[in-house]
Amino acid sequence: MPAFEKDITIRFAHTDAAGIAFYPRYFALINDLIEDWFGALGFDFKHLHIDERRAVPTVHIEADFLAASHMHDVLTFSLTVRKIGSSSVHLDISAHCGNEARFKMRFVIAHMDMDTSTSLPWPDDMTAAMKHWQAPEGDTP
Amino acid sequence: MPAFEKDITIRFAHTDAAGIAFYPRYFALINDLIEDWFGALGFDFKHLHIDERRAVPTVHIEADFLAASHMHDVLTFSLTVRKIGSSSVHLDISAHCGNEARFKMRFVIAHMDMDTSTSLPWPDDMTAAMKHWQAPEGDTP
Amino acid sequence: MPAFEKDITIRFAHTDAAGIAFYPRYFALINDLIEDWFGALGFDFKHLHIDERRAVPTVHIEADFLAASHMHDVLTFSLTVRKIGSSSVHLDISAHCGNEARFKMRFVIAHMDMDTSTSLPWPDDMTAAMKHWQAPEGDTP
Amino acid sequence: MPAFEKDITIRFAHTDAAGIAFYPRYFALINDLIEDWFGALGFDFKHLHIDERRAVPTVHIEADFLAASHMHDVLTFSLTVRKIGSSSVHLDISAHCGNEARFKMRFVIAHMDMDTSTSLPWPDDMTAAMKHWQAPEGDTP
Repeated sequence: MPAFEKDITIRFAHTDAAGIAFYPRYFALINDLIEDWFGALGFDFKHLHIDERRAVPTVHIEADFLAASHMHDVLTFSLTVRKIGSSSVHLDISAHCGNEARFKMRFVIAHMDMDTSTSLPWPDDMTAAMKHWQAPEGDTP
Repeated sequence: MPAFEKDITIRFAHTDAAGIAFYPRYFALINDLIEDWFGALGFDFKHLHIDERRAVPTVHIEADFLAASHMHDVLTFSLTVRKIGSSSVHLDISAHCGNEARFKMRFVIAHMDMDTSTSLPWPDDMTAAMKHWQAPEGDTP
Repeated sequence: MPAFEKDITIRFAHTDAAGIAFYPRYFALINDLIEDWFGALGFDFKHLHIDERRAVPTVHIEADFLAASHMHDVLTFSLTVRKIGSSSVHLDISAHCGNEARFKMRFVIAHMDMDTSTSLPWPDDMTAAMKHWQAPEGDTP
Repeated sequence: MPAFEKDITIRFAHTDAAGIAFYPRYFALINDLIEDWFGALGFDFKHLHIDERRAVPTVHIEADFLAASHMHDVLTFSLTVRKIGSSSVHLDISAHCGNEARFKMRFVIAHMDMDTSTSLPWPDDMTAAMKHWQAPEGDTP
């Protein structure tokens, strides 16, 4: 299964008084991952937001947190496309450290005009680029 | 329906380059809300974590982001208990600004021993206190 | 000495693996304080940034961290004007918990046109409003 | 001059409604830099904090913010030792993007026993390792 992957080290700055990664910080790191993935698709986040005034807001998240992460754990973050809609995309996003799964999430990202706050169909080249990262039909995360 | 509520103003510090609240910051604010709710139940977050070495990690989230929030919007965050398990609790957490819903979420929070990382049954007085905030059977969010 | 003050509770979300408030989170809280102060002056941060395209960036900070803060400490954040320049303002910002000082800082905030990135003189009414919070000559923090 | 350097890309997650990097996020990134530097010295941050209960809190900062950073700017963060005390170290920390300086800061970091909150002298091997990154006498930042 084609997966867009990135290793991320858990830092002191991600931890809380329980000594583990504070989960809201995962979401900022996932935002970085999605930003990188859009870049890899050829759709630069800066160009998209600033020049073209298009946004790709997260509209739905389902997240299972499976095990805690500690300072200096190296997590492999992984992104796969589950489903491409006309103006949205469903992503499977997970992280593991060695053999241990840390979280599994499903994201739905929309495609919007920032000025009118209305949804926009993906351009054909964007859809084509996303398909490269799509899991085969029937594949389960 | 009994709801634990708190008004929170969206600040400059919560915004991103798209000019709206960056959703990972919502989760830090929700953590504050849950911390306040545990305090209102009589279970101080500090005492729980530091003195008793018990943690209440978020193990599952389902979130729908319904509309964007802008600087200086005043959001009413609301928490209701959906279901009380032996060592977990299901919460409905939502926010609205005036008549507009901003997000609706379902959280599952576990109760754990921080030193052994094993789940702990809620003490009876904790369960009793939580029931005060429970939605009636059949009530839908 | 006239001081603009605000009580802020240190939260679980502010802590790190050392069990104390992680100092970068102080700066986000100080940003909230400065935002509130500008509001109290009659210069709404949102109106300033979004409608008038004026920014008030922090250009200089001197900070002494005097004692650690723990979860649920209630800190009184305090702001006093030290010096008003033509397009900048020097602020003394400090926090204490009971009798214990936690930090003392000196900020220099500039006044800029966001589109040209050039400094702007304060309007007269802004300077007048700031004077209300100014420490007398010779007063030391 | 020997400098410990690291390239850091400014992300969407670092930006604010003014469209630029929100300065409190710089301090979390600088914390990562200092964490990396301690690692390079052979003093792992996790081992230091968790196993040895020693902390290296920031006790003083002087910061000049020279120019704004935008999404996808690649900044070179740079750390040099200015002065090594018996239980503290003075660091020059700066960042530039291409030829443009973004900030220049001076940090004082202390060395403490986390349980007694009293200062600890640096072990000799730690002082020796730090010297490698020290600017020559009379060198100005």
